[in-house]
Amino acid sequence: MLLKSNLTVSNCEMMKRDTLPQQKALIADWQTLTRTFIRPENELAKSTLIKYMEQILFGLHDFLKKHVGFTKEVSLKELADRFTDTLISEHPEKKLADVITDLIQDIAPHAVNVASPYFVGHMTSAIPFFMVHLKTIVAALNQNVVKIETSKVVSVVEKQVTAKIHRLIFRENDAFYHEHIQNTQTTLGCFTENGTLANLTALWVARNQRFAPKPGFGGIEKEGIHAAYQAYGIDRCVVLTSRRGHYSLNKAGGLLGIGNRNIIAVDVDRYNRIDLNSLNQTIEKVKGGKERTAILAIVGIAGTTETGSVDPLTDLADICTTNNIYFHVDAAWGGPTLMSEKYSHRVAGIELADSVSMDGHKQFYMPMTCGMVYFKNPSSLDAVIYHANYINRPGSVDLGIKSLSGSREANSLILDSALKIMGSRGYALLIEHGIETARQFAREIDNRPNFQLITPPELNILTYRLYPSVIEEDISSGNIERIGRANEKLNHINRTVQRLQREAGHSFVSRTTLNTGDPPGQDTVVLRCVIMNPMTNLEILREILDEQEEIYRKTFIT
Amino acid sequence: MLLKSNLTVSNCEMMKRDTLPQQKALIADWQTLTRTFIRPENELAKSTLIKYMEQILFGLHDFLKKHVGFTKEVSLKELADRFTDTLISEHPEKKLADVITDLIQDIAPHAVNVASPYFVGHMTSAIPFFMVHLKTIVAALNQNVVKIETSKVVSVVEKQVTAKIHRLIFRENDAFYHEHIQNTQTTLGCFTENGTLANLTALWVARNQRFAPKPGFGGIEKEGIHAAYQAYGIDRCVVLTSRRGHYSLNKAGGLLGIGNRNIIAVDVDRYNRIDLNSLNQTIEKVKGGKERTAILAIVGIAGTTETGSVDPLTDLADICTTNNIYFHVDAAWGGPTLMSEKYSHRVAGIELADSVSMDGHKQFYMPMTCGMVYFKNPSSLDAVIYHANYINRPGSVDLGIKSLSGSREANSLILDSALKIMGSRGYALLIEHGIETARQFAREIDNRPNFQLITPPELNILTYRLYPSVIEEDISSGNIERIGRANEKLNHINRTVQRLQREAGHSFVSRTTLNTGDPPGQDTVVLRCVIMNPMTNLEILREILDEQEEIYRKTFIT
Repeated sequence: MLLKSNLTVSNCEMMKRDTLPQQKALIADWQTLTRTFIRPENELAKSTLIKYMEQILFGLHDFLKKHVGFTKEVSLKELADRFTDTLISEHPEKKLADVITDLIQDIAPHAVNVASPYFVGHMTSAIPFFMVHLKTIVAALNQNVVKIETSKVVSVVEKQVTAKIHRLIFRENDAFYHEHIQNTQTTLGCFTENGTLANLTALWVARNQRFAPKPGFGGIEKEGIHAAYQAYGIDRCVVLTSRRGHYSLNKAGGLLGIGNRNIIAVDVDRYNRIDLNSLNQTIEKVKGGKERTAILAIVGIAGTTETGSVDPLTDLADICTTNNIYFHVDAAWGGPTLMSEKYSHRVAGIELADSVSMDGHKQFYMPMTCGMVYFKNPSSLDAVIYHANYINRPGSVDLGIKSLSGSREANSLILDSALKIMGSRGYALLIEHGIETARQFAREIDNRPNFQLITPPELNILTYRLYPSVIEEDISSGNIERIGRANEKLNHINRTVQRLQREAGHSFVSRTTLNTGDPPGQDTVVLRCVIMNPMTNLEILREILDEQEEIYRKTFIT
Repeated sequence: MLLKSNLTVSNCEMMKRDTLPQQKALIADWQTLTRTFIRPENELAKSTLIKYMEQILFGLHDFLKKHVGFTKEVSLKELADRFTDTLISEHPEKKLADVITDLIQDIAPHAVNVASPYFVGHMTSAIPFFMVHLKTIVAALNQNVVKIETSKVVSVVEKQVTAKIHRLIFRENDAFYHEHIQNTQTTLGCFTENGTLANLTALWVARNQRFAPKPGFGGIEKEGIHAAYQAYGIDRCVVLTSRRGHYSLNKAGGLLGIGNRNIIAVDVDRYNRIDLNSLNQTIEKVKGGKERTAILAIVGIAGTTETGSVDPLTDLADICTTNNIYFHVDAAWGGPTLMSEKYSHRVAGIELADSVSMDGHKQFYMPMTCGMVYFKNPSSLDAVIYHANYINRPGSVDLGIKSLSGSREANSLILDSALKIMGSRGYALLIEHGIETARQFAREIDNRPNFQLITPPELNILTYRLYPSVIEEDISSGNIERIGRANEKLNHINRTVQRLQREAGHSFVSRTTLNTGDPPGQDTVVLRCVIMNPMTNLEILREILDEQEEIYRKTFIT
């Protein structure tokens, strides 16, 4: 075997930091090893462990305060060159204390400070510090919610919090929840690890419901797609969603054997919402085509990743009812808006969905990684039941019976606790802050001559671009060629400014490419802001714009 | 909206435990809320946060010490009745301190003490305490490794540890790893959340490679299975694995659109390894059948879930080479055996696989949830590439480009750190202890007249059953009917004893049902032990057998 050897061998302890010179080599021994499996009883050892936690909680904080992280200071190339060790050390390389110190001194400074209020580029932000405590509890309990035998009460708690979020979305009555909350035969939803797997689960259920078992056919899950199409007289099946749909929908199409080209992107209106006329036309076209095509699902989006737009969910529900199509809503981003009485109307119609995806690590402000998917019908997940001899026996409480994942940590315990600590009103305050700050920011962008607001915020995401007045002249010239060249120049400017700002490390906005139809056929590179950190305010956003103007001037006006 | 209201309203702090009478209601306010997003600078607040960590680290420990947990003391029904609250409280229900106290006092005592050395029923055990620290670091950094812009150095570290495990499995040379370790075009493997998703990823790749794009066909991922079968002139495709294969393989078959009936279970030999004759016969049968059938993959198992058996991997690799079939090895359990020089030969041949699944939360002793899948060919994952405009751009370091999951936490940082703290030798000590203790335990079972060893341990899992000598007479009678009745009685005894022992709460072994062919056509209910906790020793295992005999006597001999 290829293993790194230490040069010398001597006794040591893995727990305590060595006070002797560093050349003293470590050796794996049984006694030291087993000691790490028992939490110590003596006060000194206890206080050492606590000291490490202190270092983690506050040491990391100090380092992360310095910059937003994705700086040029040390390039990715240089970083990559530092991590090229492919051999596992035979004996311990480091003690815990040194590993923690390394993580704090060598890793954290080159990680990304997603907690900074100047980090407004992605759907990852600061989380309340108590979330770290809650995650630590989950790790210390180390329950596996795939089965009751390795989780017991935790599975029961998971069913409770699942019902709470289900009720937030679908608002069924007391009797409904009384019947299903702890019912071992029915399931209101399930935890996944992220929105991608939540969307996958929803479309998996939709597929299996569409091609359910019937006389002479055992169902698509058992017999496969080829047999299913034959049994149902179908040549192809499609999923319809807007051009702004998350790429996980394409991935689900590929995975589920439908083919990702059959996840059809429908045009959007000027608000980046699915265009209902285009949708209806697509439905007619699909139905009238020479291939016998089944429409598996329509996916509405409550908070698109790029622009934060919300599709007209009630209208989509109507269309689905009329055409007897499964209706899924991807609310990975916008779902928690339901907790704000002031803005919940912006996701109205979500309660009409057959299923809804949500992400705990987005606007529930949980640590990575927690996704969820909820089903209006508590029997929907029966379409994906799996059993095994040693676990997940029929009729048991085992949550793994109807779940994409096998082993799964108890992130439900974090969500359940967070809801108690925050209250829906606490979450509402965060969500309202995001929406209102984004609105202020949009006005600020509108007021600055060198910027152009591209997509006004419906929730707390907006896009804009640097749009220097000198170039504006070309754009308004009416000359198509001149406009095209100007747009290319704008794209180049925005790409460059975004990169230079990121490399400078004071702040971070992301960029994406939208096809806005203006100019026709050309892409528009835009800067994208996601405002979820409660410490991000208009003052900070102004600084970010100032810096962008400054970078533009320095780089392009010389 | 349906939200619980508090009766009275007053100012409060979420952080500090209220010293006033409990009836004082909590209210969500902006100032208190934002304070939870900033780790405090003052010493008092800091020490409060640290005290919570102390409570988590040692408070939980105290409670968990008491029993193994899945007791009858409070029945599942009673527990379920306690968790039937379906409304999210509008204002905070509890302060952090109270939530932590509740978790310690009300949840932990009814969770399962998977850390007990008497908990030998499942693949979840005690983990070294430093794992909790490492998980806390991951939560505190809250990086999202889907993209470099929210992880930077952490993505680079992930590529390094991926190369380390790849090398442990495939043992390529220095030049190979030098080329690929930090290569942004190639990928040696990827982290998933569990073995189920690792196996799914592997079969997803296998499927897409088999039905790759070719002139006139855009590939199965794009066009779907139906089109792929037509393009390749295929009616059906199958995956072959042993009868002991994990149920996730069936699930993958269903998900990927192949149909789970096409995951064909091949008979096992008396050691619970795939029977090579049966496998070859199955291959011939499939090839000669009237349906044009593609064999997508053969899945070998390095440590079956039920019996810990290892398939003859080298032979399987030969068969795959001969027949040009993709070879996947599910080493979710047995993979880390590679770190033991003494026992690595037991998984010999694993290096010949096209892909290998591993689980971090199993024999790498990491907290839930960490799965991984490694590919011999660094271009294999190209079969599942997905891009998006705002992330995962072509050529970037974004790990999310070739990954089943979207957002993903940096569990790679835990594995990387653990390898440094433990060394491969540290892990080897744990694995050797498990294998050798299991062997001692097997001898002990053999020596006891009232027990029968069913599957001797190849690694650290064995199955056995209570086999009272009175019933042995029936079994050896030669009368088929009498044997059948005796076997049913044995099954009943073993089911009952397992349940009563679990309910008593001193120890926990699991049970499963094997079809051993003895008596023919009947199932054999067996008790299953997984020995991975280093504190589990022969003394404890003897106590467990004593208790089982005692329960048997009390229940069946009256």
